[in-house]
Amino acid sequence: MAGSETARIEAFSDGVFAIAITLLVLDLKVPKDLERSRSLAAALAAQWPAYIAFITSFLTILIMWINHHRIFTLVGRSDDRLMLYNGLLLMGVTLVPFPTSLVAEYLRYDGQRTAVIVYNATFIGIAICFNLLWRTAAVNDRLLHPHADRAAVERIFDAYRYGPLWYVIAFAMTFVSVMASLALNLALAIFYALPHTHTARGYRS
Amino acid sequence: MAGSETARIEAFSDGVFAIAITLLVLDLKVPKDLERSRSLAAALAAQWPAYIAFITSFLTILIMWINHHRIFTLVGRSDDRLMLYNGLLLMGVTLVPFPTSLVAEYLRYDGQRTAVIVYNATFIGIAICFNLLWRTAAVNDRLLHPHADRAAVERIFDAYRYGPLWYVIAFAMTFVSVMASLALNLALAIFYALPHTHTARGYRS
Amino acid sequence: MAGSETARIEAFSDGVFAIAITLLVLDLKVPKDLERSRSLAAALAAQWPAYIAFITSFLTILIMWINHHRIFTLVGRSDDRLMLYNGLLLMGVTLVPFPTSLVAEYLRYDGQRTAVIVYNATFIGIAICFNLLWRTAAVNDRLLHPHADRAAVERIFDAYRYGPLWYVIAFAMTFVSVMASLALNLALAIFYALPHTHTARGYRS
Amino acid sequence: MAGSETARIEAFSDGVFAIAITLLVLDLKVPKDLERSRSLAAALAAQWPAYIAFITSFLTILIMWINHHRIFTLVGRSDDRLMLYNGLLLMGVTLVPFPTSLVAEYLRYDGQRTAVIVYNATFIGIAICFNLLWRTAAVNDRLLHPHADRAAVERIFDAYRYGPLWYVIAFAMTFVSVMASLALNLALAIFYALPHTHTARGYRS
Repeated sequence: MAGSETARIEAFSDGVFAIAITLLVLDLKVPKDLERSRSLAAALAAQWPAYIAFITSFLTILIMWINHHRIFTLVGRSDDRLMLYNGLLLMGVTLVPFPTSLVAEYLRYDGQRTAVIVYNATFIGIAICFNLLWRTAAVNDRLLHPHADRAAVERIFDAYRYGPLWYVIAFAMTFVSVMASLALNLALAIFYALPHTHTARGYRS
Repeated sequence: MAGSETARIEAFSDGVFAIAITLLVLDLKVPKDLERSRSLAAALAAQWPAYIAFITSFLTILIMWINHHRIFTLVGRSDDRLMLYNGLLLMGVTLVPFPTSLVAEYLRYDGQRTAVIVYNATFIGIAICFNLLWRTAAVNDRLLHPHADRAAVERIFDAYRYGPLWYVIAFAMTFVSVMASLALNLALAIFYALPHTHTARGYRS
Repeated sequence: MAGSETARIEAFSDGVFAIAITLLVLDLKVPKDLERSRSLAAALAAQWPAYIAFITSFLTILIMWINHHRIFTLVGRSDDRLMLYNGLLLMGVTLVPFPTSLVAEYLRYDGQRTAVIVYNATFIGIAICFNLLWRTAAVNDRLLHPHADRAAVERIFDAYRYGPLWYVIAFAMTFVSVMASLALNLALAIFYALPHTHTARGYRS
Repeated sequence: MAGSETARIEAFSDGVFAIAITLLVLDLKVPKDLERSRSLAAALAAQWPAYIAFITSFLTILIMWINHHRIFTLVGRSDDRLMLYNGLLLMGVTLVPFPTSLVAEYLRYDGQRTAVIVYNATFIGIAICFNLLWRTAAVNDRLLHPHADRAAVERIFDAYRYGPLWYVIAFAMTFVSVMASLALNLALAIFYALPHTHTARGYRS
């Protein structure tokens, strides 16, 4: 019964992740009412902030989904606190298309700093929810599987101890350079998406 | 066969809940055509009714999803009446983004009372469907699992006896104060989303 | 292996049905730029064609989903022809929000006949796909489970022999009265959604 | 554990495919503000590029989904490289509604060549991801099931050796004739969607 309870949480969460990641495409707008002198190619090229935002958000949600699954591989039971933090986490994930849209719209214009601050704040909020979710499950083995892989548990504790720091740095960088902050976000997304020997071991074990 | 029938109803319902909860983000609009004198931050801050409506609707659908699963943990068979009431319930759930949008758009303007009335009416309609669904399944153990947890069954009967009353109160309050009615909705959503000793027991059992 | 193949087709189809049915809500528009003299309540009431179209389409997709599952309860194997007709069926289902939108927009205006014709034609197309899908599976027991319930198989053959006729009648009625055609569609959707002794037996068996 | 890992990748991917294929309908626009002299039927008929693009994209995503499943029937384990290429593949799939929209909007107008180039480039990108995904799994039996059907493995190697060529040809044709390129895309989609003796065997085996 307990196992089937987390299976249902996972299936619902998977649905939300899949939909949020697919809705990102709605932020790519078809250029309308081109001026005579402007080609469609030029109009599409001018939308590069939207593509950067799309790729960054897509990879970030993808990595979040992978992390969500890593956690639930180790969780054996559910309770109301876990449901609450998972719910808040999903609220953060469904929000992502909104700040992505803000960045796509306002980068290079007045308001770009505000847009990237909201973007970074969303990711920090999600990172906090991930920490709350994980600590609810894992501190004192509260809700972990009796036979959960100890090495995998330790790796997640390590990752969550320092990981959110990067998003705080990205947030702080917004006040120095909006572009650098966005570039750090993209770099983080690509870095985490690339295969790592360490992580690969995590999967195989 | 019967068990697999409810499994399919649950999977389809999960899909609908997950999509409806994710579509709520489409009600958060990127401010367009800012006037010169107005910053993006100010424009975003001015949209606070949209955020209140988003959070209230998100938590409410999340709680509905949890309740839906609690019911189906206890239901062992399906028939056409159950399918009908579940279908009407899902129709109510898919509707939620629409009144949420109304509230986000009209709060603080003419028409805000109408918007919040429609919002409350949607939740009352869904509560009625939940009651019909539950009574179809549980009265005289019509469609319950032979080994359904009796204490859990009683707890749901209790909850559904008085629960809808809160939504009726929220509805009635609209005629006194629109803001108070909305605040009650938000308070209810937060209250039900927070962990409860009682409910926690329900999960563990 | 074969069984798991139809399981995957069902899961994918369930996803498409769930998304198509949830996207219908996007056809309900929040009234914008109300004229001074007009209340939100009046503007919402004036949108009644959208609500009729929403309810009719929702119930119709719900019934299609139930029928889809009834078929796949009896189907044991898959081949390319089944995949093709199922794919065409899903194309029809994903289309439904478009003619629904047409009806919501044009009912009571010039073009309402065209809108309802497209609406009816979509349902006829889907009914044809259902027939092709079912005949591919069931004629000569081509892809049926070896132990498929013979009475259930016969009931579907009966239903599919005369069922599409109603949609043809609704289509033909468009040329007499647009409203009557739409009313027949709604009546059919409600009729099929209501519990039937006969059908109920089909589930229990 | 490894098997359940690919099950989760498949379920998430199925969700993304199902949503992307259903979002295509949002590219079919309800004609607004018809001029007096123009009927709705004429306005709908004038949108034929949108219907061609819808059908081509729908069938293409459908075929991609079938191919994705064929691959995962044979894959037994997962690692980070597989996750990465699957993630990039899904990014390509969620993108499809955007170039579809471009084609629907710009066909027959200035910019139609650009639109169809982007459309073709998206499909080439997806074909490359499919190749990377397959080669990661199958070269040296890296991640294949120990008992994977050898004939099916060979058939996929064959198909992926020459298959992408068609998309390159469609891409090249854009510079000769935009319409011919689009027609080739549609023809390919229909050809692959039609039942083939060869492929059918692949399913049955």
